[in-house]
Amino acid sequence: MIASVVERTVQVDLGERSYSIEIGVDVLGQVGHEVRRRIGTSRAMLVTVPPVGRRYGPTVMRSLEDAGIKARRFFVPDGERSKSLRQVSRLYDALLGAGADRETAVIALGGGVVGDLAGFVAATLLRGLPVVQIPTTLLAMVDSSVGGKTGVNVARGKNLVGAFHQPRLVWMDVTTLRSLPPRQLAAGMAELIKHGAIRDEAFFAWLEEGLEGLANLEPERVIPALERSCSIKADVVHRDERENGLRMLLNFGHTVGHAIEVLNRYRGILHGEAVAMGMAFAAERSEALGLAPRGTAERLVALLRRAGLPTELPPYPRRAYLQALRVDKKRREERIGFVALRDIGRAETVPLLPGEIIPPLRSKARR
Amino acid sequence: MIASVVERTVQVDLGERSYSIEIGVDVLGQVGHEVRRRIGTSRAMLVTVPPVGRRYGPTVMRSLEDAGIKARRFFVPDGERSKSLRQVSRLYDALLGAGADRETAVIALGGGVVGDLAGFVAATLLRGLPVVQIPTTLLAMVDSSVGGKTGVNVARGKNLVGAFHQPRLVWMDVTTLRSLPPRQLAAGMAELIKHGAIRDEAFFAWLEEGLEGLANLEPERVIPALERSCSIKADVVHRDERENGLRMLLNFGHTVGHAIEVLNRYRGILHGEAVAMGMAFAAERSEALGLAPRGTAERLVALLRRAGLPTELPPYPRRAYLQALRVDKKRREERIGFVALRDIGRAETVPLLPGEIIPPLRSKARR
Repeated sequence: MIASVVERTVQVDLGERSYSIEIGVDVLGQVGHEVRRRIGTSRAMLVTVPPVGRRYGPTVMRSLEDAGIKARRFFVPDGERSKSLRQVSRLYDALLGAGADRETAVIALGGGVVGDLAGFVAATLLRGLPVVQIPTTLLAMVDSSVGGKTGVNVARGKNLVGAFHQPRLVWMDVTTLRSLPPRQLAAGMAELIKHGAIRDEAFFAWLEEGLEGLANLEPERVIPALERSCSIKADVVHRDERENGLRMLLNFGHTVGHAIEVLNRYRGILHGEAVAMGMAFAAERSEALGLAPRGTAERLVALLRRAGLPTELPPYPRRAYLQALRVDKKRREERIGFVALRDIGRAETVPLLPGEIIPPLRSKARR
Repeated sequence: MIASVVERTVQVDLGERSYSIEIGVDVLGQVGHEVRRRIGTSRAMLVTVPPVGRRYGPTVMRSLEDAGIKARRFFVPDGERSKSLRQVSRLYDALLGAGADRETAVIALGGGVVGDLAGFVAATLLRGLPVVQIPTTLLAMVDSSVGGKTGVNVARGKNLVGAFHQPRLVWMDVTTLRSLPPRQLAAGMAELIKHGAIRDEAFFAWLEEGLEGLANLEPERVIPALERSCSIKADVVHRDERENGLRMLLNFGHTVGHAIEVLNRYRGILHGEAVAMGMAFAAERSEALGLAPRGTAERLVALLRRAGLPTELPPYPRRAYLQALRVDKKRREERIGFVALRDIGRAETVPLLPGEIIPPLRSKARR
């Protein structure tokens, strides 16, 4: 660890699949030596999208080269549509064409799309290549780069194909956030807030205190926020790597959020925005079901709004929501594991029928 | 366990991924209740090829139905070409179209092609569905159904895409072997012999004693042979699930065997036959390198021949073998982990350059 460069480390404890998340300022140029040290490879494939690759690719490539790693670059088109079996197949070909073996590192530089696609390819090519995640969006930093979930989309839905594959290293440079559009930044904030809401009241209160400093990307707010948020997720994943129980809590806001995305056909709305609406809705339902004290939803909604996030469900008819919920992959037979808040900082999974999640007389869902 | 029906059980000990292999005579009609008991699912997709599906499918479907499991059938064309991303995609669609969720069992009925394809789909759809293997060939019984390797082929080679995914149950009915062509039976014998050669001299000697009874499918030879062979593989996999060390020994005969398959473009030669040639070659090389005592190769070759297996390399030029070895996915940088015998019953991995594996003056490889 180069203490003067990387400022915080979060250790993800998963036995022999343990890895660390390194968080720093202006550290992209140091990643090569860490890759070399941890994986001991001399070959890599950098997977990225054009805007990110143009901006940060040369620094990363040079850093790999300086560490004695021969790297090639692979571009996927920007956007969710790149999480396809077609791009998976292209990337398989590119890696095999470059002579990849089981030591060849796959390095994902970009947001969630790049991380999920590259992660899935690394999980399945030669039954597993080492993968390094260099997330450049806030959402990818606090969500998709921690936990080992990888996935691609098929015609019937998002992330329906995937595998668990833990990265060997996650490298976060907070300076990459400066080029992120404000709306994308807010979307990432939704997951940060989620981590506080489901597991850590103190962190939630800390966010309430200084949300604007975080939004302005002040390092003294961003770095601890990333550290805390990743620690919460890492702790949950450590206790339940394969999503049999506790890890389900990370789906807070996602059941209805995902339904919103399906109904919108994933257009015009960011994942974090859909999750924000889903969380606001779930908190209100938690109160209505008598699970959370009055005021819980109000407190969550207030913070989400300050982050610039939407909190009202789009006005689709109730039956549209019900149908969208039924195709959600997390359903087990009939009931859905709905994540409810018991309070700010505490969540639990409640098995509910779709009709109980979206009750008949709820005006917001019927507008 | 229904003691009167299933005659032997091999426990594969992999912590929370442990499962058992049940071996019996005329037990296909009992599989439904075991699936229900172990997975607790009410839905299944039976994946099979036409000849096997026609012969045994109805018995398995009825058994699932009797156990309260709604099952559908999915046919893939017979043959290695079905281990493709195209069939993977078709099977994803069929499962999602049938409303699969994370409890839906994928049941592979057939040989290695069906097991590998269905296993890969189960490994990656919804990040993991439970899979039950019902191998109906000797090769699948002793090899591909134990160990959790799944895989499909891409243009650049066989099994280059895959994942580790342990089955929840392996169900073997030795009566299915009666419809197996003799050449296929011999090919399976190659892996049985391999297990003795690398790990168990007593088992090897037992095979030498009564190979013909085994070839005639006498239950008192077949059942213990399956039990012993699966136990050896299960023990190796238990000690090294992810193929970092010991498990490499299972590749005995496979480095050169795989090269033969590549050079033959996988035509006119069965996997077990290629492995038999590879093992004979590897045993001879082990002797020549002074690793194994004189007579080791002769003893192995004699048993392989009695099983009706080929033991001479096809006469491709040396440089063709070298090139084929270099695309083998198991290589680590330059050297290849070549599995050598130290004696009958004992093997070890030796890092060799392709040119050391196939030496220049070896007449057999240059004919």
